[in-house]
Amino acid sequence: MNRKTLFRHILSKQSFLCIGLDSDLNRIPKHLLSLDDPIFEFNKRIIDATQDLCIAYKPNIAFYEALGAKGWESLQKTLDYIPESHFTIADAKRGDIGNTSRLYAKAFFETLNFDAITVAPYMGIDSVSPFLEFENKTVILLALTSNKGSNDFQLAKQSDTEVPLYEKVMRTAQQWGNPDNLMFVIGATHPEKFKEIRQIAPDNFLLVPGIGAQGGDLEGVSKYGLNDHCGLIVNSSRGIIFAGEGEDFAEKAKAAALIVQQQMAQILVSAGLTKAQEV
Amino acid sequence: MNRKTLFRHILSKQSFLCIGLDSDLNRIPKHLLSLDDPIFEFNKRIIDATQDLCIAYKPNIAFYEALGAKGWESLQKTLDYIPESHFTIADAKRGDIGNTSRLYAKAFFETLNFDAITVAPYMGIDSVSPFLEFENKTVILLALTSNKGSNDFQLAKQSDTEVPLYEKVMRTAQQWGNPDNLMFVIGATHPEKFKEIRQIAPDNFLLVPGIGAQGGDLEGVSKYGLNDHCGLIVNSSRGIIFAGEGEDFAEKAKAAALIVQQQMAQILVSAGLTKAQEV
Repeated sequence: MNRKTLFRHILSKQSFLCIGLDSDLNRIPKHLLSLDDPIFEFNKRIIDATQDLCIAYKPNIAFYEALGAKGWESLQKTLDYIPESHFTIADAKRGDIGNTSRLYAKAFFETLNFDAITVAPYMGIDSVSPFLEFENKTVILLALTSNKGSNDFQLAKQSDTEVPLYEKVMRTAQQWGNPDNLMFVIGATHPEKFKEIRQIAPDNFLLVPGIGAQGGDLEGVSKYGLNDHCGLIVNSSRGIIFAGEGEDFAEKAKAAALIVQQQMAQILVSAGLTKAQEV
Repeated sequence: MNRKTLFRHILSKQSFLCIGLDSDLNRIPKHLLSLDDPIFEFNKRIIDATQDLCIAYKPNIAFYEALGAKGWESLQKTLDYIPESHFTIADAKRGDIGNTSRLYAKAFFETLNFDAITVAPYMGIDSVSPFLEFENKTVILLALTSNKGSNDFQLAKQSDTEVPLYEKVMRTAQQWGNPDNLMFVIGATHPEKFKEIRQIAPDNFLLVPGIGAQGGDLEGVSKYGLNDHCGLIVNSSRGIIFAGEGEDFAEKAKAAALIVQQQMAQILVSAGLTKAQEV
């Protein structure tokens, strides 16, 4: 899926919500555990219940890998089940020397057919560029993450004149890709940074984790993060998929997603990004 | 496996060679492709032929992931097949927020039972510490990698007084772990940096990729990299496992590994690290 189509879906659904499929076998409702593939069955019901309210799904690859070959099968089935209309993000945070990044790109973009993958920037250009070479696929590069450890290197500065690492990453990576194939991860836990970030990258979409369980705030993020083609994909994982624990977990997830979607619709309307704008 | 046992194996085999199992389905000998699990059969023969000459094996996870669930099975079988006497490294370069890193640690340390995993430092303390909590397991943190892209962020400095990122990573991470559970990746393509690196981290083992296909040089690396308990694990992947293409590929791999091991034995003897030292 390309950026234009993504924007069309955002307008039409009045939502920029991504639902994180962090489908932890220890947290999914007990009544699913007797089924042949509990993780897939969980995801299927979550997708059925929430697909009208969100524009993207983001499986967190760790939760599948932790289950070995079986987890990989659940992931493949989940990807096959997500409707074409949804942007799919492999939250994998990969990045390696060129020939290896090429293999990861093949795994996620071809074998699994994801639209996008999160990539770690530490190893520089030849670790990222193999992912950028795929047509109609998107790299979402880690810039300023939502966790406490973002202070260790991403925000650290040795002097007042120094540019922090996350900014260096964003400026450098814009020489490798463009807004059509490059997005950035910016945690919702840093709302005060979004003004600056929009100056560094006015057009790139930002994938924003950290609302809900991690404490980030949608209004704060949107205030400066929104641009004229929305430019935000805001993710919620645990806050939605584990909203309920019983047999009605999918309805509970839908209700939780609806609350976020309604907030998003208000934000979009205030910014003049209405259904009427749809091309 | 702990550091002391690893050192014992290095002395006893007079080798600090790690063989990288970058077992690319497109490059393994054609006659294996008709077998049920070509990747595992390839690895099995490589392990049989080379186990006396090396002290570690390092499957590059991308090559398995690219094959989906089937690749994951080949990886599990390979891990089960590697003898207890060998240090096993998942070259995975993972790193994510705390609850996710915990899952990755579980996947690689428990499900697959690796001794060590390569981890990317970009996301800071809470992305690395879950891996450090496992007993008798080792984190190998990316510091200065062997690829061209290491210039983009790891070596970049904005002023003469600034410490480059890789050094900041090494100094910071030593507050999180100790030489018993923390090693660093330092590419063989930066031999001029090893003197400085040994001042920053005198006791930690260094995992050194980049000899062979990537052009690094064993003598150059050992000159300053070696310490009183060896302190080096030098990896070769393609140069050994793809030394031959025919039915005798395993013998060719053995011959290629023997050349490296003999160089290593000379280096160890010159440094006074002989079999007689073995505890």
